[in-house]
Amino acid sequence: MTEDRLLDWLRRRLGPSLLGDDAAVLPAGRPIAVTVDSQIAGTHFVPDLDPAVVARRLLAVNLSDLAAMGTEPAYAFLALSVPAEFDARRFLAAFVAACRQHGVELAGGDLARSPVATATLTLLGRRGQGGRWLHRSGARAGHRLWLGGTVGESAAGQRLVALGARPKGRTIDLPPGFQPSAAARRAVRRHLTPVPQLELGRWLGRHSRQGGALDVSDGLARDLHRLCRESAVGAVVEADALPLAPGFAALAGALDADPLALALSGGEDYVLLFTLPAGVAPPEAFGCREIGTITKRSGVFLRRGGRSELLPAIGWDHLGG
Amino acid sequence: MTEDRLLDWLRRRLGPSLLGDDAAVLPAGRPIAVTVDSQIAGTHFVPDLDPAVVARRLLAVNLSDLAAMGTEPAYAFLALSVPAEFDARRFLAAFVAACRQHGVELAGGDLARSPVATATLTLLGRRGQGGRWLHRSGARAGHRLWLGGTVGESAAGQRLVALGARPKGRTIDLPPGFQPSAAARRAVRRHLTPVPQLELGRWLGRHSRQGGALDVSDGLARDLHRLCRESAVGAVVEADALPLAPGFAALAGALDADPLALALSGGEDYVLLFTLPAGVAPPEAFGCREIGTITKRSGVFLRRGGRSELLPAIGWDHLGG
Repeated sequence: MTEDRLLDWLRRRLGPSLLGDDAAVLPAGRPIAVTVDSQIAGTHFVPDLDPAVVARRLLAVNLSDLAAMGTEPAYAFLALSVPAEFDARRFLAAFVAACRQHGVELAGGDLARSPVATATLTLLGRRGQGGRWLHRSGARAGHRLWLGGTVGESAAGQRLVALGARPKGRTIDLPPGFQPSAAARRAVRRHLTPVPQLELGRWLGRHSRQGGALDVSDGLARDLHRLCRESAVGAVVEADALPLAPGFAALAGALDADPLALALSGGEDYVLLFTLPAGVAPPEAFGCREIGTITKRSGVFLRRGGRSELLPAIGWDHLGG
Repeated sequence: MTEDRLLDWLRRRLGPSLLGDDAAVLPAGRPIAVTVDSQIAGTHFVPDLDPAVVARRLLAVNLSDLAAMGTEPAYAFLALSVPAEFDARRFLAAFVAACRQHGVELAGGDLARSPVATATLTLLGRRGQGGRWLHRSGARAGHRLWLGGTVGESAAGQRLVALGARPKGRTIDLPPGFQPSAAARRAVRRHLTPVPQLELGRWLGRHSRQGGALDVSDGLARDLHRLCRESAVGAVVEADALPLAPGFAALAGALDADPLALALSGGEDYVLLFTLPAGVAPPEAFGCREIGTITKRSGVFLRRGGRSELLPAIGWDHLGG
C-alpha cells in the first residue's frame, strides 16, 4: 500500500478533519499550527552521519513545513530513540543550538532505546503578525505557479552521500576524484542541511491575499499533484523554467542521472511551491522562479519543446520500497 | 549515561524551560498542554504484538501523561515508522477508534519506513473546566501521598508476555499450565492496555486546591523521587499500605519475583501518584490508596516492620541497558 492511498483511506474514515495540510491549524483562542516529522537512520540519513547534522536536519525539515503554512515557529517536542552507541548529547546540543537560532523553545519530549536511531519532532507555531495561514487548497485557475528555489540538487546530494560523501568539519569529503567538486559539495550540503524558507513563507502570509502553498519534500511532481488535488485545479509546468543549481547538469551527468528527472522527482528539496495571482511576484531577493500556470482543467502537464505531456506523480513514497 | 543525567544536563543547558512535568503548559491565550511518548518494537512491546494493541497502548500511555496534569485530551499527532510487514492499517483503525472513545482528534502526523516499528504520539490537551493544572512541583511537607491504583501488576504482565503470553480475541493465551491464571490474565491486560486515570486527574484538577501529581511510568520509587525533587521535599512510604492486585503475591511467586520489588520498581503502572493535604481524600469510587507522607526532610524512605530504610530511585531507565 502506498502512503497516499493509506492516507486517503484514513481521511475517509475520519470524515472532516484537520489532516491535509503541512501543519494543522487548531481552533483555539490564539490559533497555533502543529507539524510532525521524523528522521530515521537508514531511511532518511546514513547511520554513520554526524548526530549534530541529523539534529539540524530534523529541525530544518519541520521548519520547512511551518514555512509552507506562513507560520512563526515557537515550541519543539522531541522524541529521540537511539542505540547505545549514538551520541545523544551531541545530537541534543546541536538541536538546542539550532532551535535558538530560530527562536524555538524545546518544550518537551521523550527518550528511549531503539536499535535504529529515530528522531521525531513536533513543532508548534503561531500565525505571523498580520498574516494569513497558507494552505494547499489556495491555488486558483489563472494563478502563476512559483518555486522558492532550485530543485533536484538535494537528490544529487543524497546520491553523493550514498557514494561516501560526508561532512568533515566545515568542508565536505567527496568520493576520491569526483568532479565537478564545487557543485557536488553544494549538493551534499543542500541535502544534509536544507535551509527552510521561513522568510518567504512570512512574506507570502503577509503580502499575498490569495494563493496555495506547500513545501517540496517528496518531489516537485508529487507535491504539485497534492497542491492541485487539494485546490481542485490542474497545472502546466514549463520544463525550461525549472530553476536548477549552477553546474547541476554536469553534476547529474557525473552521477549517471537525468537532470530533469532529478528535478521533477528527486525530493527533499525543501523549497516552497506556491501560487500567486498573475501580476503579483515575491521580492527578487528571495530568488523565486515562475515555473508555470494553474489551470481550470484538471491534470498536471509538463511542457517542453512546444509539446505538453502528462506529468505523473513521480517522487518519494514514504511507505514505498 | 542515564536518562535522568542526560535530562539534567539538557535542562542546565536550556536554562528556564517548560521541561520537567509530564506535559508542557504553553503560555498562550487559552493554554494547551502537550505531551510526547513513543512505543518501539523490542523496547516497549514484543515485535509480534497485534498492531491494534500497540495502537491502544500508545494512546493510553500518552493519555496517562495528560491525566497527571489534570488535562482534557484534544488533539493527536502521530508519527508512525514501520517495516513493510507491519499492518499499518490495522494500527490506524484501532488508533482512530481509541481516539474517538476519548474525544481526541487525530490532527496530523507522519508516516515512514523503518526496520523497527516505532510509533510516536504527540497529544495536546486543554485544562479541564474550572480546574487547575497539576504539577510535579505541588507536593508540600505534611501532605499525604496517594496512589491511584495497584502497582507491580504491569511488570508481572510484561514478564508473562516475555514468556509467551499473548492476547487472542477477547482472552489472553498464557504459557501452558501457568498458574494462577486469572491473576496472570489480568496482569497481561494491565500491561498491554493500561487504563489512563483521566477521571481521577479531572477530579484532582477541580477539587484539590493543593498537591503534586505525576503518573507512575518508570516505577513507583523512581517517579516518587522525581516528585520529591521537583517539589523539594522528602517522603516516607508505608510498605504495608502499597495497593497490590488480588492474587499478586502468588503471581509474583510463580514468576520467581519479589512482589515488593515489582511494586516499587516494575514500572508502566500508569496510575497517578499524587499528594493531598491531610484530611482531603478523593472519592472512594476511584479506589485510591494513601501510601505515605510528604516530609520537610529530604530523602525518600520505605517503612516496614517498624523500621525505615532509604528507598533508592530504582526503576526503569529509558536509556539504560
